[in-house]
Amino acid sequence: MPYRSPVGEFRFILSHVVPLAPVAATERFAEAQPETVEAILTEAGRLCDEVMAPLNRAGDLRGARLENGVVRASPGFAEGYRAIAEGGWVGTAAPVAFGGMGLPQAINMAVNDMMSGACLALQLNPLLTQGQIEALEHHASPEMQALYLPKLISGEWSGTMNLTEPQAGSDVGALRSKADPNGDGTYAITGQKIYISWGDSDVTANVCHLVLARLPDAAPGTKGISLFMVPKFLPDAKGNPGRANSLKVVSLEHKMGLHGSPTCVMAFEGATGWLVDAPGKGMAAMFTMMNNARLAVGVQGIGVAEAACQKAVDYARDRAQMGPIIGHADVRRMLATMKAEVFAARSIALACAVALDMSRATGEADWAGRAAFLTPIAKAYGTETGIRVSEMGVQVHGGMGYVEETGAAQFSRDVRVTAIYEGTNGIQAMDLVGRKMADGGEAAFRLLQEIEDGAEGARAALPQLAGDVWSAAETLREATEWLLGQGSQDRFAGAVPYLMAFARVLGAHYHLKAAVSEGGTGPRTALAAVYIRRLLPAYAAHLAEAREGAAGLYALSPEDLGA
Amino acid sequence: MPYRSPVGEFRFILSHVVPLAPVAATERFAEAQPETVEAILTEAGRLCDEVMAPLNRAGDLRGARLENGVVRASPGFAEGYRAIAEGGWVGTAAPVAFGGMGLPQAINMAVNDMMSGACLALQLNPLLTQGQIEALEHHASPEMQALYLPKLISGEWSGTMNLTEPQAGSDVGALRSKADPNGDGTYAITGQKIYISWGDSDVTANVCHLVLARLPDAAPGTKGISLFMVPKFLPDAKGNPGRANSLKVVSLEHKMGLHGSPTCVMAFEGATGWLVDAPGKGMAAMFTMMNNARLAVGVQGIGVAEAACQKAVDYARDRAQMGPIIGHADVRRMLATMKAEVFAARSIALACAVALDMSRATGEADWAGRAAFLTPIAKAYGTETGIRVSEMGVQVHGGMGYVEETGAAQFSRDVRVTAIYEGTNGIQAMDLVGRKMADGGEAAFRLLQEIEDGAEGARAALPQLAGDVWSAAETLREATEWLLGQGSQDRFAGAVPYLMAFARVLGAHYHLKAAVSEGGTGPRTALAAVYIRRLLPAYAAHLAEAREGAAGLYALSPEDLGA
Repeated sequence: MPYRSPVGEFRFILSHVVPLAPVAATERFAEAQPETVEAILTEAGRLCDEVMAPLNRAGDLRGARLENGVVRASPGFAEGYRAIAEGGWVGTAAPVAFGGMGLPQAINMAVNDMMSGACLALQLNPLLTQGQIEALEHHASPEMQALYLPKLISGEWSGTMNLTEPQAGSDVGALRSKADPNGDGTYAITGQKIYISWGDSDVTANVCHLVLARLPDAAPGTKGISLFMVPKFLPDAKGNPGRANSLKVVSLEHKMGLHGSPTCVMAFEGATGWLVDAPGKGMAAMFTMMNNARLAVGVQGIGVAEAACQKAVDYARDRAQMGPIIGHADVRRMLATMKAEVFAARSIALACAVALDMSRATGEADWAGRAAFLTPIAKAYGTETGIRVSEMGVQVHGGMGYVEETGAAQFSRDVRVTAIYEGTNGIQAMDLVGRKMADGGEAAFRLLQEIEDGAEGARAALPQLAGDVWSAAETLREATEWLLGQGSQDRFAGAVPYLMAFARVLGAHYHLKAAVSEGGTGPRTALAAVYIRRLLPAYAAHLAEAREGAAGLYALSPEDLGA
Repeated sequence: MPYRSPVGEFRFILSHVVPLAPVAATERFAEAQPETVEAILTEAGRLCDEVMAPLNRAGDLRGARLENGVVRASPGFAEGYRAIAEGGWVGTAAPVAFGGMGLPQAINMAVNDMMSGACLALQLNPLLTQGQIEALEHHASPEMQALYLPKLISGEWSGTMNLTEPQAGSDVGALRSKADPNGDGTYAITGQKIYISWGDSDVTANVCHLVLARLPDAAPGTKGISLFMVPKFLPDAKGNPGRANSLKVVSLEHKMGLHGSPTCVMAFEGATGWLVDAPGKGMAAMFTMMNNARLAVGVQGIGVAEAACQKAVDYARDRAQMGPIIGHADVRRMLATMKAEVFAARSIALACAVALDMSRATGEADWAGRAAFLTPIAKAYGTETGIRVSEMGVQVHGGMGYVEETGAAQFSRDVRVTAIYEGTNGIQAMDLVGRKMADGGEAAFRLLQEIEDGAEGARAALPQLAGDVWSAAETLREATEWLLGQGSQDRFAGAVPYLMAFARVLGAHYHLKAAVSEGGTGPRTALAAVYIRRLLPAYAAHLAEAREGAAGLYALSPEDLGA
């Protein structure tokens, strides 16, 4: 069976697990009432099932190509993109004033989740544009907003992010691209950027690059970085694409997967750019864009995991080896694991989105803190789930899983990059234990309190599961207190396992809520039991690793490691 | 830096962790003295580094092709294969009487490990031939041995295994290929076989297929399966390749990786075959072949993990982002994890090989039982290590890891199949908790005793690490006793996590032995601490899952899972 958008899952989670109701109760998101949400998700789901999913394999087999300096998208991608744009899905969460729907991020992320499951390579294009819209919304002048936002939101133009340079990956501060004033208010942008997803294509009339570069007198490091808008075609007096800018695609990367998404090496050769926000504010603007993008990348992982899960279940139902293999205990174990993981990761991502929405609607610092804290967890756990679940999907297929025709392997190859781009998962974890807990872990403790309260409330209906969750939260609390007492080297050494432990405990919390919502009996409860009894226990191993600190790692010299 | 065969690792492990000395003390393997072993490994290592490793990328980029019914190997593979054959490496462990070196499997597996790290796709060819040699050695008539073994051992001809049919994967008993007596002592073999690795190629003068098929009056299921030798070219009176047999390659699979290894769909159309062993003994003969092949596939995983680890360390040493990234705690964590996993998996595989050698040399049932018990663990943990470590290798590379040019992604794609072929890891785990523990778990308890004794002996030098290992063994002992009391459904539901827990505890045991051998201080001890303190704790999560049984999984119906 082909991909089916899991509209019912979002309905359930946003009703019972991570309620959208408080968001819809705010003035800003008053539109987001249940019937609207239902209509939106159903409509988006239809587009995913009918238009996007059928393009996925062609995107893999016939990836984007560079022809005479122009990127030609995979077969059908232009039409697919047009359908996305015409449905208004680039602007689901964009400001109404510029043509967006103004809906909460929770809804936008649900739509992104479905689109990622249907065709990740194509979905990445509007996703990047969404990031650009957000950056312009918060940092651009009214004139720049008026010129660019309507075209980006309508999907007529697309947007990219240009951060990375060969010598400047995770260390963005090392970038060297420069911006020289032209004297007319514009700047001449010169430099090479790499890993620019959808850096060019023939699916939109213009491609708008947000580029990080340095002004002539800029300070070294991140403080000297400014942000520029550098369109492929310079807008003419009417705002239509005019003269070609001095920039080009040098080459496309040959990647492990995601072939439908062109990954460009870009050369800016004195290209005309406009400063966004004040000089030196480039990183701040980039962070606005990235925080959302990070959550969205986590959601990409979840969407692919959903699709991999569906394909594996279909195969296991149809494939007979001494009866349908779905009847075999080990296959059942894999499928149940996959489904439980997807639910947990999805709930965490939606909790992050709801916190973001509440923060924007109410301005309350607690919500902002929660959103900031959950973002790296949602990104790393969502993408990790994408990798694990799609890999298990290959395994369920046995030999067929390794044969590309099946499609299971494509999920595994495509989703692999999500753990790397928008900040590797290691960077996410360092962000969590560093910046996001610099205030003494307020958001962490608030979440732990909520988890413990939830477990207390569930004790009557589900004593065993509630007890497991409560104990895990307690142990995590102790580990959190310990972590906050360590120096940065020890924190960083334990960052990834700590993040994974926190994600597991959160996942168990949301599963428990799901079980409670059906009165402690039924399929949600059975799935919660799979997660809490079988998968949650890994949190203890993660915390054991997190608490080891850095010394043991540095006891091995580079030479001991083989260098 | 290019691949470096880890000769020193084998020297260390076979001296201090899993000693080869008892094997070399037997009459059968009296040749395997340290100086011989050193010369053999050094020579094989040179071949791997200088001849095989340089072919690896070409095998991926320019995979095997089917041209006019003949498989054309990747560029350089024919020369690479010839170098392997001329070095005598097809017959490292093969009988001296037929031209082999007659060395222990422990040495053969060390050679296979290095060759897998250098070029997995090419190594798979002689590996399959080794399996065929073993099957013929134990099951063929003297005449068949005299005809085939010298040619297979010299590498002039290669061998394949033909088990799988479209409807018969893990359920081998469902196969339908038939063998009709021709009246002259030969049989007409008819049927389709799939997933036949190296089912044809232009690197050898003949390809000898061992084919499972049914005689006309055969019983249903596995008891009615017989084994046949079906060569591509029928040997003439002098034993040279003569008339072409009635068989052909229908197509090659388009796979996720391992492109240099042609995966064939084979059609046998009344092909002439010779019965190997008695009618109905096909599965028994196949198991002889498979047990060794399973260990060897585990070793493939380890070899690729080694190569991935080396590449990641090299990259981390050279790549600077705020200093060389090997200095960053999270990168250090990944590299240390990778190296510790490779050591653990390699020691387990070599322990299995030594048990096999001791069993063959002494005929003692305890050694045979240990080899049988360790085989599925070595296979599943070795291949799981291959997947985990190569995936971590991609992560260490960041964005470069996702770009194929780097080579990190190829390891990840190539090694993925090892968890599937020769019996999926799920099948391995079911074999472990089913057949291999049907005697009440004798081999398991003997190993646990050895682990506990080892920990006791290490307490003085390394109290913390020894205590951790001892406790883990105790917990594993309790879980083993619990498992033996369960019915097959509950055993099977916990099979994979139980296997993984056993592997972790074994891995910790061998790391502890390594640490003790250097007096409890030094790089081996530091690596042991990484494994025991950081990676061992996962055993408890695995056992928690294993002890959950099947009920929770079946509480979810196929419909609940999305079917």
